[in-house]
Amino acid sequence: MTEPTKPANRLRGYVSHGEDLRSGRLSPRTYLEETLTRIDELDGTVAAFVVVNRAGARLAADESARRWAAGKPLSPIDGMPVAIKDIIETADMPTGQGSPLWEGTDGKRDSASVHALREAGAVIVGKTTTTELASKHPWHETTNPHDPSRTPGGSSSGTAAAVGAGMVPVGLGTQLLGSILRPSSFCGAVGFKPSVGAVNRSGSHDHFSQSCQGSIGATLADTWAVLRAIADRAGGDPGYGGLAGDVDFTRRTKPVKLAVLETAGWSATTEGARRAFAAVKQRLQEHGVKVLDRTQDDRVETVEKAVAEALRLTQAIVAWEGRWPLNTYADLDAAKLSLDARDRLKIAEAMTQQEYRELLDQRAAVRATYENTAADYDAVITLAACGAAPTGLGSTGDVAMNVTASLLGCPALTLPVLADEGLPLGLQVLGRTNRDAELFDVANWIAGDALGRPDLVGKVF
Amino acid sequence: MTEPTKPANRLRGYVSHGEDLRSGRLSPRTYLEETLTRIDELDGTVAAFVVVNRAGARLAADESARRWAAGKPLSPIDGMPVAIKDIIETADMPTGQGSPLWEGTDGKRDSASVHALREAGAVIVGKTTTTELASKHPWHETTNPHDPSRTPGGSSSGTAAAVGAGMVPVGLGTQLLGSILRPSSFCGAVGFKPSVGAVNRSGSHDHFSQSCQGSIGATLADTWAVLRAIADRAGGDPGYGGLAGDVDFTRRTKPVKLAVLETAGWSATTEGARRAFAAVKQRLQEHGVKVLDRTQDDRVETVEKAVAEALRLTQAIVAWEGRWPLNTYADLDAAKLSLDARDRLKIAEAMTQQEYRELLDQRAAVRATYENTAADYDAVITLAACGAAPTGLGSTGDVAMNVTASLLGCPALTLPVLADEGLPLGLQVLGRTNRDAELFDVANWIAGDALGRPDLVGKVF
Repeated sequence: MTEPTKPANRLRGYVSHGEDLRSGRLSPRTYLEETLTRIDELDGTVAAFVVVNRAGARLAADESARRWAAGKPLSPIDGMPVAIKDIIETADMPTGQGSPLWEGTDGKRDSASVHALREAGAVIVGKTTTTELASKHPWHETTNPHDPSRTPGGSSSGTAAAVGAGMVPVGLGTQLLGSILRPSSFCGAVGFKPSVGAVNRSGSHDHFSQSCQGSIGATLADTWAVLRAIADRAGGDPGYGGLAGDVDFTRRTKPVKLAVLETAGWSATTEGARRAFAAVKQRLQEHGVKVLDRTQDDRVETVEKAVAEALRLTQAIVAWEGRWPLNTYADLDAAKLSLDARDRLKIAEAMTQQEYRELLDQRAAVRATYENTAADYDAVITLAACGAAPTGLGSTGDVAMNVTASLLGCPALTLPVLADEGLPLGLQVLGRTNRDAELFDVANWIAGDALGRPDLVGKVF
Repeated sequence: MTEPTKPANRLRGYVSHGEDLRSGRLSPRTYLEETLTRIDELDGTVAAFVVVNRAGARLAADESARRWAAGKPLSPIDGMPVAIKDIIETADMPTGQGSPLWEGTDGKRDSASVHALREAGAVIVGKTTTTELASKHPWHETTNPHDPSRTPGGSSSGTAAAVGAGMVPVGLGTQLLGSILRPSSFCGAVGFKPSVGAVNRSGSHDHFSQSCQGSIGATLADTWAVLRAIADRAGGDPGYGGLAGDVDFTRRTKPVKLAVLETAGWSATTEGARRAFAAVKQRLQEHGVKVLDRTQDDRVETVEKAVAEALRLTQAIVAWEGRWPLNTYADLDAAKLSLDARDRLKIAEAMTQQEYRELLDQRAAVRATYENTAADYDAVITLAACGAAPTGLGSTGDVAMNVTASLLGCPALTLPVLADEGLPLGLQVLGRTNRDAELFDVANWIAGDALGRPDLVGKVF
């Protein structure tokens, strides 16, 4: 099948239902039941969830309903069903890290982000599949909700698939190379990888220096609201100020000038993807936005050259930083690590601290080059993936179009506004580091105004 | 008793025995047996260890002995018995975090640092006590090896006590406020808190932004060698270059100019401590070193003013960053948290993300002020504690003299060269951030040349 599954209308976002929740026309419990019904209907095929905590979720939804009825919701996301990538710890469900080594492990505690979500009144629905240790190998057989013969992408496979299928309005993911932007693109969801350090990752098995905790949702408003609710209560990573600012989704900022970045990986994009991107570019220009590429601005070319080696550089940084815990996991039971993980460990063990120090210097230089140019633009656009989700479940697809934002540490969004092979494809919009709210302002205008998709904007009341 | 226990001679350091190890005159197994004997003799009173892994240590020592005999040691610390603070994960021993909540917890894996130590051939002897979650409350009754009625200090209580008692030549600790420098001072050991980020903390329950993993040892050479061996194999915290450089302990660098910092807390120092410090200052001047205080350099006064609020600022930063995991631990079983931990959680829950952002700005400003002045000096000296270890085991003593280095993120050493009430007291030497090796060069000269304590220097062969 190549026709995208249409998610139930109600499940296109949660925070946009604020007025209904406030007036009592919609109860969080009712919303949750639609969520659970949809999971029952679809998850046999999609297999997005490792575990669903129906009893716990119902209890939380009922408590939320009482708060709304009393006119005292804890936050705009009070009652929102949220799926949690199974790399992030939850007190009421085991955390398996997508690895036979850790399957069923009860860590007994919530991560900083999950605890913050509970404080904000969110309903933690279940744990969603991740590839092994949030890296490449898919031990779980999660399928793409738009075509079960295709990958949902990874590593945040289950969260993207659950949102893309309309099972939940939003979920948490993590991205080190492309683990939010790409599966969001493949599954037809909004994906938000915030600035590095923006969301507290404590209690998530996610210790890499350019990794981020982020969100995948039905609307921009949901992806924003869920992370802001966390940052308000748990801040960013220790030492970082954390995601800040507020977005008024009724105010959409028309950009004056956008840069087109044909990053490393552009040559791997499909013809369909490039055609879809060109159409968006044209639409934006028709709306009076200046859209400049390297032929019109030398500095864009300078950035393209600076990020040309983004994948190599990232892989080297990640290899060194991943030496632990792979080494101690290999001691535990190497046979329960994928061949890919064992290969990465071998690469790491051949590296030196001095090599890593030099890689950090290179990364800092690339980041400075990007920020310098990005400061002259309202945002940067490119593709969120090389094309539609590829066929097969053994690989989660090419990270080429996602790794740039990870290396740069800047905020980036996937907007599910394109198509390739009749399947979802994302437009990627990149912003400036620690200016995540400004990125949303522009993305809201692009989706809501230029591309005629106000449904993707949603709104926070 | 007020006379310091004299550690067995052989146990004054490990790496200085390199020639004997190489020639076969000393075997790592023999060294270990002396270690274990001393633990058997003393730990009934000192109670530094939560668990000692005799069988595992003997196996590792025998393997090390074979490598030395074959002329193929893995590193200068091959065969070195190392104690591990019980906040740091070990695959072969549970990690209790000094908390009834986590006592006996088998995390199944080594921390990055412990795994690196094993790769370097070190012998992991056991886990040493920590105060609750490496903070204040002592659930364990570890005593000071020089007087069992007094505290060993904390939070790295067991490591400092074990080294001070001569049970092990070195151990790992962590410092967030004063958890390495102060217990080292109280127990008569060398304490090394490296630059922030210098040692990979992955797999340690230690997520605060100004916290560090460091070492407590019998000699400067041991404290340096053990951390360099880790950094070589596990690097620093992800995103940090990690402890770098090598120290030639036969080359001691005479400083031209030292600054005296009467930090916040100076007014709480005992008369005996101030007298001992004044004598050291005089000795250094007799050796021709310029030792300037605020009356001779306005910039020193500027630094003193900048760090005057070090404790308040640190406590506020730490409160916000400690919101998690205390909140989810309180959900688990609040009765198993100390009243102090529950108080800290209440403070954290009254804070906002915006307040934290402002605190980070303040810290950055203080750090810049310090680095600016420190650049004009070879090192900065002050007291490592307010005086001798106080009597009683319910409190680990005043952090006033330690918190400055933690706030600044700079490297700092405790040199056990002073006395107060006939008990050990440390001289604190602070360096410039990420110039840890330079700090050692100067500290070696101070201890070895100016103060006539070459035994504290040791040497790496």
